Amino acid sequence: MSRRNHIAFVGLGVGISTLMPSLALAQEIDQNIVPASASSQYIFNSLLFLICGMVVMFMAAGFTMLEVGLVRSKNAATICVKNIALFSIASLMVWVTGYNIIYGVAPGGLMTPLADWFGNVDGRLFWAADDSDPIGTGYSAHSDWYFQMVFVATCASIVSGTLAERVKLWPFLIFVVFLTGFIYPIQASWEWGNGFLDSKFAFSDFAGSTLVHSTGGWAALAGALVLGPRLGKYAGNSITPMPGSSLPLATLGVFILWLGWFGFNGGSQLAAGSLGDIQAISRIFVNTNTAAAAGVIAAMVASQIMYQKVDLTMVLNGAIGGLVSITAEPLMPEIYQSVIIGAIGGCIVTFAVPLLDKLKIDDVVGAIPAHLFCGIWGTLIVVWSNNASIARRAGEEAGLSADAIADAMDAAPSFVGQLVGVLMIGSFVFVVSLLVWLVLKFTIGIRVSEADEIIGLDRAELGMEAYPEFAMR
Amino acid sequence: MSRRNHIAFVGLGVGISTLMPSLALAQEIDQNIVPASASSQYIFNSLLFLICGMVVMFMAAGFTMLEVGLVRSKNAATICVKNIALFSIASLMVWVTGYNIIYGVAPGGLMTPLADWFGNVDGRLFWAADDSDPIGTGYSAHSDWYFQMVFVATCASIVSGTLAERVKLWPFLIFVVFLTGFIYPIQASWEWGNGFLDSKFAFSDFAGSTLVHSTGGWAALAGALVLGPRLGKYAGNSITPMPGSSLPLATLGVFILWLGWFGFNGGSQLAAGSLGDIQAISRIFVNTNTAAAAGVIAAMVASQIMYQKVDLTMVLNGAIGGLVSITAEPLMPEIYQSVIIGAIGGCIVTFAVPLLDKLKIDDVVGAIPAHLFCGIWGTLIVVWSNNASIARRAGEEAGLSADAIADAMDAAPSFVGQLVGVLMIGSFVFVVSLLVWLVLKFTIGIRVSEADEIIGLDRAELGMEAYPEFAMR
Amino acid sequence: MSRRNHIAFVGLGVGISTLMPSLALAQEIDQNIVPASASSQYIFNSLLFLICGMVVMFMAAGFTMLEVGLVRSKNAATICVKNIALFSIASLMVWVTGYNIIYGVAPGGLMTPLADWFGNVDGRLFWAADDSDPIGTGYSAHSDWYFQMVFVATCASIVSGTLAERVKLWPFLIFVVFLTGFIYPIQASWEWGNGFLDSKFAFSDFAGSTLVHSTGGWAALAGALVLGPRLGKYAGNSITPMPGSSLPLATLGVFILWLGWFGFNGGSQLAAGSLGDIQAISRIFVNTNTAAAAGVIAAMVASQIMYQKVDLTMVLNGAIGGLVSITAEPLMPEIYQSVIIGAIGGCIVTFAVPLLDKLKIDDVVGAIPAHLFCGIWGTLIVVWSNNASIARRAGEEAGLSADAIADAMDAAPSFVGQLVGVLMIGSFVFVVSLLVWLVLKFTIGIRVSEADEIIGLDRAELGMEAYPEFAMR
Repeated sequence: MSRRNHIAFVGLGVGISTLMPSLALAQEIDQNIVPASASSQYIFNSLLFLICGMVVMFMAAGFTMLEVGLVRSKNAATICVKNIALFSIASLMVWVTGYNIIYGVAPGGLMTPLADWFGNVDGRLFWAADDSDPIGTGYSAHSDWYFQMVFVATCASIVSGTLAERVKLWPFLIFVVFLTGFIYPIQASWEWGNGFLDSKFAFSDFAGSTLVHSTGGWAALAGALVLGPRLGKYAGNSITPMPGSSLPLATLGVFILWLGWFGFNGGSQLAAGSLGDIQAISRIFVNTNTAAAAGVIAAMVASQIMYQKVDLTMVLNGAIGGLVSITAEPLMPEIYQSVIIGAIGGCIVTFAVPLLDKLKIDDVVGAIPAHLFCGIWGTLIVVWSNNASIARRAGEEAGLSADAIADAMDAAPSFVGQLVGVLMIGSFVFVVSLLVWLVLKFTIGIRVSEADEIIGLDRAELGMEAYPEFAMR
Repeated sequence: MSRRNHIAFVGLGVGISTLMPSLALAQEIDQNIVPASASSQYIFNSLLFLICGMVVMFMAAGFTMLEVGLVRSKNAATICVKNIALFSIASLMVWVTGYNIIYGVAPGGLMTPLADWFGNVDGRLFWAADDSDPIGTGYSAHSDWYFQMVFVATCASIVSGTLAERVKLWPFLIFVVFLTGFIYPIQASWEWGNGFLDSKFAFSDFAGSTLVHSTGGWAALAGALVLGPRLGKYAGNSITPMPGSSLPLATLGVFILWLGWFGFNGGSQLAAGSLGDIQAISRIFVNTNTAAAAGVIAAMVASQIMYQKVDLTMVLNGAIGGLVSITAEPLMPEIYQSVIIGAIGGCIVTFAVPLLDKLKIDDVVGAIPAHLFCGIWGTLIVVWSNNASIARRAGEEAGLSADAIADAMDAAPSFVGQLVGVLMIGSFVFVVSLLVWLVLKFTIGIRVSEADEIIGLDRAELGMEAYPEFAMR
Repeated sequence: MSRRNHIAFVGLGVGISTLMPSLALAQEIDQNIVPASASSQYIFNSLLFLICGMVVMFMAAGFTMLEVGLVRSKNAATICVKNIALFSIASLMVWVTGYNIIYGVAPGGLMTPLADWFGNVDGRLFWAADDSDPIGTGYSAHSDWYFQMVFVATCASIVSGTLAERVKLWPFLIFVVFLTGFIYPIQASWEWGNGFLDSKFAFSDFAGSTLVHSTGGWAALAGALVLGPRLGKYAGNSITPMPGSSLPLATLGVFILWLGWFGFNGGSQLAAGSLGDIQAISRIFVNTNTAAAAGVIAAMVASQIMYQKVDLTMVLNGAIGGLVSITAEPLMPEIYQSVIIGAIGGCIVTFAVPLLDKLKIDDVVGAIPAHLFCGIWGTLIVVWSNNASIARRAGEEAGLSADAIADAMDAAPSFVGQLVGVLMIGSFVFVVSLLVWLVLKFTIGIRVSEADEIIGLDRAELGMEAYPEFAMR
């Protein structure tokens, strides 16, 4: 559902919560309760963006710690530079082009045919906030921008981990400019900017399993294919393990990501000023946490069975797998559904990591299984908890008119619609990313020299070391 | 006071703040101020649970960093697995049984005699939220569940540190299932679930010095006794120091815990939608911070005097000791009382750590002094700032009726009531934990082999290393 | 502008937002929108202090991680002790003297002549909250205290980094007592306590580029001069690099600081209960983030040009430089102005770090360039986005009366006023700090012995090691 339609929809008092049996009753009672004043609603909505945006911003630290813990110490400082730089680039590019591409012009204008494919861009650069009609929008424009910006940064954070230990610093950052300024915004406009995936296919991606996580994963996969594996990783049929330098920091990273995900999914309700909205956000928190927990336990059990050992990196990626899996629909599932959705996410990670190694695709931190594969899984399984028949039942229980029920059923996601979204966004992001990586490869080059890779990117690219005093084995 | 009674009490406009001289006046003026609308109150209350719940959730990262910094590097990955797994188990067990045991059915039914002892359980599994009467409860059921769940996880986090470096992974996690699914919920029901400690003894534990921290501490003590000390820790009368591998990470952990404690204590006001409530929360923030600061300074001075050196681990545990000490009553103390309560907490930690070593109880991170001993101290000292005579004076100043004053005096904690709560909960948790540990010991075993302990649990249980590249001394 | 005047000003419905063209329209429309109730406003305002205060409190962890990552491992535990102790001292001293010095008595009393210079002190110790007139103040007194307290702690955190690796523990903490209990509060009273910088010079420092960051920087500079450089740092004309022990932890620290800065600047709006306030806070978030991002990119490009390498420590300090630079005025700039202000901050850091080395001023973590130099820069550049002519134009667009416009123009900052504030506060803090450091030097001594400095402060002062198991080169 379009993020903009969504909030308007809620504003009409027929929020997504009416689609959900367990909330229908509350919504009904809601009618007899004095709503918060327009000002209070506006403040609640903006606060939601700011508070949730803060913890999503902190996910940048989470990705950095996860990645710095999973790379070897000779590349640890470089991965820190990449992460802080990519967040900064995202901050600037969303301002320069990104936000306008996603949300820039209303549909229906002259640009519509183009806008269908390339976002609502009318050539304007430099987003300028407009708070002239506070009640019409219902939240501060700057708070919304802040919230959307940190989502773009999250997408870029996914890429750095996969390509660590061999990609050159500046070419990587040039890719980030394209990803955050164009690739992400264009595909996001298809869904969250009133685009065709939303309007024509009823595609549903609540907080971005596909739009954010799979997009990052596809961009990472394209990069990994063009870049090739690290030296010595795959010799013949043997796979050389290259364990990360600090599992405690990687663990810290996952806890930070877990924390940030409450903001990521909870804030994607986009409003907090009504009973229905705050109930929805609370439910999202519970489902998000449950899926993560289930992902952890599933990955532990799966790795115990597969390897007779519990592998901490699998456990960590199991949490992320569970979180990504619930991100496409954290509101509608019953808790037992979140358990199952998250647990399968944890299993996907555990089984896909060795699979990628078999394909000789070198993903340093396991981002492709966690973000891409679980992103696809989470997007497709949306229809288990949110579909036309659930919408009809909820509508009937809420006593909606036949027309309203028909509308709700039309707006409900279908398996085909979800698949279309996954495929359209996947192929667009993958192909364009591949092109950008290839152009970079054959112009300025994207890979450090063999000598530099052996001594490590920290000494080669930065001239410094992450842990200069510690003796290495 | 029962968590449920408490909020109803506030809802009647006669909040705990009327018991407190400094707030009585504000409360009075409150009568002339238009209160927030029912919807706004509901949103404020739910937001309080969600925001405070987020920072309490992040305490899981704090415990992990504290523990990973205080264990030796050969056990660092394992302690990470334990911490992320115990949080996940708590998340699931609170859903399966825990929440219903604490809050499941109203008192007065057929189950009452049993419910007095075993929690308000009616055999139902799988908590199901009910938001059908939003005004009656005053907050979203999911937001409350989220907040209560992270408390259970906190309790379990305490145990992992004490037993580190020698307890087997899976048996430890089985204990966590019992702790989070049964032991914690049953004792919590005695107080926070309208149980007999609340109704019969006026026991008062605002945010859980006893219910959360001592409970974790008792479970850890029972485990430590059954498990025995680490190999080589106590040889004859000499104690071998086994310093932790990363004091910077341990320090980070304490800062995260300190942050989380604002949510822990502040959120335990359980409501934020009235002037009295937000004033109370603000006062709780100040007292919580003050007690932690006093704990730090006290531990520094005490360790300087005792050892002629400032010991960082004492300073860190001093902060936690101060925080646990104020947790039973963070609202009522004047600031100078918080200074004294926290400072004594810091001293308790400093003196108790060597005492445990003399008793050959091996507590790897010092969790028993900080959480159990300071939890007892904090619970008993409640009566300094909150007792019948303070309630009477406050009631008189607020111009309450004689009956209302008598009720407030009856509801005020007494030293005997506090002692009963400490002893009842302590003996229940300790005995049941001891039994569970013993059963585990004599069935599947709870301790790794000597050889495994020597090579470290990371290699033995996980087949990996936390810092694989770094050379060790 | 005085923090107290500011909020009153907003209370009158003529908030700072009327001074800003882009918000004037929104403000106008505001007139037709039912405002939040007095209770809701009070709760929003207090929540702002509590939530923002929490993330500012967490900046203590950020400074600790930054500093522990940039000192050598032999001093890592000591810097942890210093940071947790200075936060604790700040917590207590703000209660004992600090808050009353800044805000203690209303202007106009007998003490006024003295209060002009030494803060609004009437000899009272031990701040006591007064919530007797909630509507008059508009927020809980405790929430305000909490927010102001964490600012004082931030100021002290700046000093520890500069003086690391050679200052004695207890003398350093005695200095912190003076800094947090007297030096900071006195100069803060000049501006935020209705003092002469505010009333006579229209000095403007929104969130504390000068009052917090430069003050910390001046105190650090005075200390560095009295203390002298580390042994072997400057031999003749050569400079010995002494790289920090863990760049990943330093990076984590900067991400935490970045997060905390949203609370630091956003919370300094001091109110969140109206449309104008929440719009302002949102805009502050965007400007704060943008300046940090621009600081990062500028420092990267500058260090690439200067050294043909990207230096991670420069990038990290670039972020802080950008953040400090925008702190004096995070509300009024257009985003492109934030880009430029932050980018110049990032460049200042990159060029000033080697400059300090040329002057043989040994600043271990680069705090003087980031906090002092960028603090001055940020304070002076305020007049680019906030000055009399902007105030006039905004007033005209908002249709204010000629008198109101004249008042707004008088209240707008001027370059001279900003310079006066920078010089007055700078000379006061520097001279008094110098005196305190000199007295400490010639009484108890402030520097560890050469032997202790060589073996490291951890072993010398604490008798322990931060990383006891890891082999050093």
